[in-house]
Amino acid sequence: MNLIGGGELNGRKRRGDELMEIDGMEAQIIAVGTELTIGQVLDTNSNYLSQSLDALGVRVVGIQVIPDDRVTMRRAFEESVAKYDFTIVTGGLGPTDDDFTKFVLRDMFGGDWKEDAASLAAIIDYFSRRGAEASPRNLAQASVPSSCDVLFNRLGTAPGMLFRRGDHFLISLPGVPFEMKALFAERVEPLIMSQSNRRNFHRTLQIYGIAESDLADRLRSWESSLSPEFSLAYLPSLESIRLRISAKGEANKDTEAHAESKVRELRNILGPLLFGEGDESLADVVGKLLVAKKASVAIAESCTGGGVCKSLVSVPGASLYVRGGIVAYSNAIKERLLGVAESEILDCGAASGEVAEAMAEGVRKLMDSDYAVSTTGVLGPQGDGSCTPIGTVWVSVSGPLGVSTKMFRVRQSREIGMALGVSRALNELRLYLLREE
Amino acid sequence: MNLIGGGELNGRKRRGDELMEIDGMEAQIIAVGTELTIGQVLDTNSNYLSQSLDALGVRVVGIQVIPDDRVTMRRAFEESVAKYDFTIVTGGLGPTDDDFTKFVLRDMFGGDWKEDAASLAAIIDYFSRRGAEASPRNLAQASVPSSCDVLFNRLGTAPGMLFRRGDHFLISLPGVPFEMKALFAERVEPLIMSQSNRRNFHRTLQIYGIAESDLADRLRSWESSLSPEFSLAYLPSLESIRLRISAKGEANKDTEAHAESKVRELRNILGPLLFGEGDESLADVVGKLLVAKKASVAIAESCTGGGVCKSLVSVPGASLYVRGGIVAYSNAIKERLLGVAESEILDCGAASGEVAEAMAEGVRKLMDSDYAVSTTGVLGPQGDGSCTPIGTVWVSVSGPLGVSTKMFRVRQSREIGMALGVSRALNELRLYLLREE
Repeated sequence: MNLIGGGELNGRKRRGDELMEIDGMEAQIIAVGTELTIGQVLDTNSNYLSQSLDALGVRVVGIQVIPDDRVTMRRAFEESVAKYDFTIVTGGLGPTDDDFTKFVLRDMFGGDWKEDAASLAAIIDYFSRRGAEASPRNLAQASVPSSCDVLFNRLGTAPGMLFRRGDHFLISLPGVPFEMKALFAERVEPLIMSQSNRRNFHRTLQIYGIAESDLADRLRSWESSLSPEFSLAYLPSLESIRLRISAKGEANKDTEAHAESKVRELRNILGPLLFGEGDESLADVVGKLLVAKKASVAIAESCTGGGVCKSLVSVPGASLYVRGGIVAYSNAIKERLLGVAESEILDCGAASGEVAEAMAEGVRKLMDSDYAVSTTGVLGPQGDGSCTPIGTVWVSVSGPLGVSTKMFRVRQSREIGMALGVSRALNELRLYLLREE
Repeated sequence: MNLIGGGELNGRKRRGDELMEIDGMEAQIIAVGTELTIGQVLDTNSNYLSQSLDALGVRVVGIQVIPDDRVTMRRAFEESVAKYDFTIVTGGLGPTDDDFTKFVLRDMFGGDWKEDAASLAAIIDYFSRRGAEASPRNLAQASVPSSCDVLFNRLGTAPGMLFRRGDHFLISLPGVPFEMKALFAERVEPLIMSQSNRRNFHRTLQIYGIAESDLADRLRSWESSLSPEFSLAYLPSLESIRLRISAKGEANKDTEAHAESKVRELRNILGPLLFGEGDESLADVVGKLLVAKKASVAIAESCTGGGVCKSLVSVPGASLYVRGGIVAYSNAIKERLLGVAESEILDCGAASGEVAEAMAEGVRKLMDSDYAVSTTGVLGPQGDGSCTPIGTVWVSVSGPLGVSTKMFRVRQSREIGMALGVSRALNELRLYLLREE
């Protein structure tokens, strides 16, 4: 039995006895697990699935989070499959006594049990590589309803399952986020695309250094020139605004060419505000610029407390360009290690442009790096005894072109202020590296 | 009209025509917002509410996330109010055209519109403090259905609302997390407690340094000695396992005394594995120990890249005891700044106990601090060219008692390895500080 690719909707679907033109396919996400309904675990899977389905042009009609309870699960699954093109179920596939998903699905879709040979071999291998033997409970994870197509899970022991009732699909995925994501990308996305003739072109652009409302203002006339099948979504966070451009409508080369030309226009409009694509972070982009220049960087931090350095080091391969950092949280360290003059601190407090500059230049010299970035500020809840207002942050970048220093203010909590200080410092370093291009 | 405190359930409820003994009250959470169903925003409100309701002894039967669509909202609200004691709705209360919650609720519960004077004054004040004038759209946020009790929102412009149908309550809260949390704690918790004669005693203990399954094994016999009204929940994260002890049953002094004595027993069983209560973090506890000793700390990091320092600095008041840190990501910095001997790195690679010790002692001397903690390791994805296996992390603590060094292994990704390295280093520092007591 091979369900995948077996159905065609062609932009129409049957609901009851009526054949209607539809505007797109619909999905419901059902996350199963009492650990979710008692708040023990934050459900991030549904957010990933919502984003992914929306990007594929599938409308998410809702997300349900339900406990490990057979009756509740059966009712939720039945109602969802009756109504929607796709029901994506996560969780409830573990080996323990409260994992019911596959039992409920066998009751619902019928058939007997079958053993999936590939999954069985993978389970045995998984335990033997860890010097252990798979228990009968673990081996039983390879047993699945005969009414399903197996979605082989190369990262874990619980196989995914695909069921079909008429034109409606139910897909059961493991609750472990990285296993779920891999299975969704490798097996579910192609299935959804095979069911649709809709173009699922989408591009995500990463933007930093402009407020969401200002960005919307700046893009207004560009947005109005988009073909009607295009839509924009703004996804703001502390590190960036992600701007997602999606094209709906029938797949053809015109759509794609139009989209590409609009993305090029956007690059012109936004200039250096646009720093990357997809999941690229500011630290990724800074890393690439440094690798291209075969250059190194050092970091001197006060108010961000090590956060800038941590972000840069988080990128695999960072040891190629990160020399190191100093967190000069006390003034004594600013003076002794970084050579900041005591008079500068006395004159204007430790959170000043002069001190930021001295820190960047001091750490660049100390660590013998090509570039350096520094932060100093007052994030509260208490002031630092000087007249510097709480929320003041200075960022300075030192390099072959000299030193560049900027001040900004944050109005939020200490924690958010630290995060904004980090992203601002990374962005100033990026802009400095770009200015040399 | 004052709905609060007007109803009594007394452990019984009517379902259909049957009056049944019940095991407790039930709630459903409904999060409204298309930004949630397209994955633009991660729903963290429902997790907070699930935890809070569960801690109050209310069973969360499910969480629904639905788009800004009047028909979907009405159906979800009606079904939920018909079935459950409490329906908690978040979101859809903003001033824009796609915020429908209060309109749907007025249609559902009837009545006209009324203007809430306190909310109106707060809205005018909110804008005037920002040097702006409230627009008609903003002022209209003070208008609510006459069928509700207003839950005044002291942190924002959208009031919460309380509706009642028979013994069943629907509570509408704003979607902004900090506004929602304050309203829940100040207004909804007392309401729920007034509806229940059940004791909602709960304590959360913070535990570090033991696997969840080992902790469960260690607590088995203690757990079996708990009175039947008590239950345990394990809430694991990268920073700790939170162990929540809840007592159900009628409120009385015996319950509370039993609970307190069981918590004392737990402290004896767990010893230094138990590091705090409630929301205390490892960095908070380390900070308190340092403040009590009037002592200072310095940090030398390699594989954690600044994360240990950042965690310590994140605690308000950290400038009292954090001198500063060095991120010695390159070997040259380890040697030049921290005085690690080149021969030590040549002998055993940069990720070794000897190097960790030299780093801790070096930074303690350099920054003239009472204590110091260091990390060095290989977190991948690439090895460091030595024979050190990927996933090796060394942590060393230096202080008046000499130096204490430990090695551990992480099997997860670079990102998780960094986070575990941070929490392990903070915990080793905590244990060192405790050993002196």
